[in-house]
Amino acid sequence: MLETMLKSGRQAQKAVGASTASQRNQILENMMERLRERESVIIAANQKDLDNSQDLTPSLKKRLGLSASQIARLIDGIDVVIKQADPLGQGQGQKRLANGLTIEAVHVPLGVVGLIFESRPGVAIEATALMVKSGNAIILRGGHEALESVRVIVECWQDAIDAAGFDKNLVQAVLDPDRQYVGELMHLEGLDLLIPRGGPELIQRVVREATVPVIETGVGNCHVYVDDSADIQMAVEIVSNAKVSNPGVCNAAETVLVHQNIADKFLPALEYELRHYDVVLHADERSRCHLSVSVDATDEDFAKEYLSLDLAIKVVEDLDEALSHIERFGTKHSEAIVTNNYRNGERFLNAVDAAVIYWNASTRFSDGYEFGMGGEVGISTQKLHARGPMGLEALTTWKWIARGQGQVRS
Amino acid sequence: MLETMLKSGRQAQKAVGASTASQRNQILENMMERLRERESVIIAANQKDLDNSQDLTPSLKKRLGLSASQIARLIDGIDVVIKQADPLGQGQGQKRLANGLTIEAVHVPLGVVGLIFESRPGVAIEATALMVKSGNAIILRGGHEALESVRVIVECWQDAIDAAGFDKNLVQAVLDPDRQYVGELMHLEGLDLLIPRGGPELIQRVVREATVPVIETGVGNCHVYVDDSADIQMAVEIVSNAKVSNPGVCNAAETVLVHQNIADKFLPALEYELRHYDVVLHADERSRCHLSVSVDATDEDFAKEYLSLDLAIKVVEDLDEALSHIERFGTKHSEAIVTNNYRNGERFLNAVDAAVIYWNASTRFSDGYEFGMGGEVGISTQKLHARGPMGLEALTTWKWIARGQGQVRS
Repeated sequence: MLETMLKSGRQAQKAVGASTASQRNQILENMMERLRERESVIIAANQKDLDNSQDLTPSLKKRLGLSASQIARLIDGIDVVIKQADPLGQGQGQKRLANGLTIEAVHVPLGVVGLIFESRPGVAIEATALMVKSGNAIILRGGHEALESVRVIVECWQDAIDAAGFDKNLVQAVLDPDRQYVGELMHLEGLDLLIPRGGPELIQRVVREATVPVIETGVGNCHVYVDDSADIQMAVEIVSNAKVSNPGVCNAAETVLVHQNIADKFLPALEYELRHYDVVLHADERSRCHLSVSVDATDEDFAKEYLSLDLAIKVVEDLDEALSHIERFGTKHSEAIVTNNYRNGERFLNAVDAAVIYWNASTRFSDGYEFGMGGEVGISTQKLHARGPMGLEALTTWKWIARGQGQVRS
Repeated sequence: MLETMLKSGRQAQKAVGASTASQRNQILENMMERLRERESVIIAANQKDLDNSQDLTPSLKKRLGLSASQIARLIDGIDVVIKQADPLGQGQGQKRLANGLTIEAVHVPLGVVGLIFESRPGVAIEATALMVKSGNAIILRGGHEALESVRVIVECWQDAIDAAGFDKNLVQAVLDPDRQYVGELMHLEGLDLLIPRGGPELIQRVVREATVPVIETGVGNCHVYVDDSADIQMAVEIVSNAKVSNPGVCNAAETVLVHQNIADKFLPALEYELRHYDVVLHADERSRCHLSVSVDATDEDFAKEYLSLDLAIKVVEDLDEALSHIERFGTKHSEAIVTNNYRNGERFLNAVDAAVIYWNASTRFSDGYEFGMGGEVGISTQKLHARGPMGLEALTTWKWIARGQGQVRS
């Protein structure tokens, strides 16, 4: 089945890859219209998915739900994608060699991209919008719990594509819940890229097993380091926001590192602020004495992406210890420092090796929509090809075009 | 051993990664001086390698040799690298979000890069120059046949680095010929990138087995398609150059595809031109009748990267058949068309999926030095991260730096 999908995806991709930006934008305009018209149909399908998934954890349920306001935001996202510059066509690097040969790098789509995702059906809207704008075909494989939602969304896409005069196989979904198809996607020879978007287990499995090109996304063991010169109120707000505003996502903070000189003021203030949110504090020995209620933190806690209302806390000697801790336990996703000390701020930005590094802001901004990309295909935690929120550019490659008059190499 | 090398490489990389372009250029200037001073020492070491490798094939021997003129060209290459813009530092994409948070993409080195190469000791000069300029540390692993040459070259690098005030472990080599170290490099956790540069077997093994990030390079089953409107003389010169000027390299042509309408004129002219070079022509049925001496070509020939004075020949119905043949047998490296028909030329450039696509020029130009990059780390045949000759940019990634005043996400 997947080989047939790859073939028909590639066929559909050829025309879209060679089309103008306004033709691709027409598909996106059509999709915005379809989403507005069929909002209630989508919500009903999503309700069916929710009814079928009573056994999910609360945070997974939250991911699965698709409200009218979320749909409105996704429509907004498509509009942002439409307004972005065409990522295809002539790039930089045009050169004329001494022998008269001209070479230029031309940006082209990757081709056919697979996306395996879990729970969140909105991914089928935002990631696909980026694929279409960048001229790629997509094969979606959502979690079985989101089946009904994805089915309706893909119908909207196919109608939108058809109405723009293109082959609807540009967007396809594997709707059979059989898990074997995940394995087949990982080994689908010729697939240009496979992106896993979901929990750590899915991502690790795909990175380990796939024989097709993969971009690792989204495992986020993110830290906030509160330096001794931090503004306490600002630090409390940033840590609280990074932890509780959406604990089930990869850009949520999992550990707070506190400079020893400020622990006695900061930690009680943090505990006071978090009292409304049922956050469980996993504290190391030096932080426990500044907290009234906590459980003991071990290295296992520091290594964990909780994705829940748990927060690990460690008191550190200084910025150096904070940096080593992040080097040891971080996942190169998003890291933050809160400080009013210019040197420490700059040092943190330079020394930390991660996709996004914040100075006096919450880690929760690591998101394609927040970054002005209209959405994201995933958040890359690797260094090659794409880093951080993946927008249009991450979905392109280039080819070198050389035009000559018979040049040969001497 | 490799873990220690990785650690000391990372340590050395920190200072160089944070240095100015002129500090990194100083290392390169020093290296140019060392190479000039020690030219005879390098050639003597290389002679030792050649003496120890009597059993190599002629084309491998040619790769292994390092002449004074090749050293001069490598020195030139370093000079070109010095003159290139610093690939590190602030990039495009600086933005100020509505909430006042500023984000910018800053280009940074990848970190520590491993390079496994075979035979050609010059790689230890040209690839390393690009690594140093882009602020990376490198762990070199040359073929055992190039041991003495690589040893002397790495000594030159380490002296050049030391004289510029940096830690000489920036450039290290695994000089122990034990093959287990190739395996260890492929699984060296924390290595930021591993590039295999050599024959198809090495490359395939690394791509298949490595658990560290890899860029696939250099397998080149390159085609020249001679269209019916081609200038015969130009087509003969291009095919001849692409085949015989250096048959052992990845950008050499392996198959010529000839439009049926021009086969009777082109093929005899090609055979006449190649009479001096002992090229064995592997011809399909339709081309055989235009050649006086040939052997039969099978699909195996069309799939093969000969890397020798063999050339497969096939007569095709038209451009469409040529495109399908390239799609089936090509390795996404370098492909050429010879035509005076504008529509066919443009169609070929657009339709072929490869790193470099030529119109009326030899495939032999796919090379970092020819492209004005001063050399190359390898020629990427994959679509992600780097494509074609890999210069400075291919050795960088970026991080997003976000500066705020306490922003939290609503």
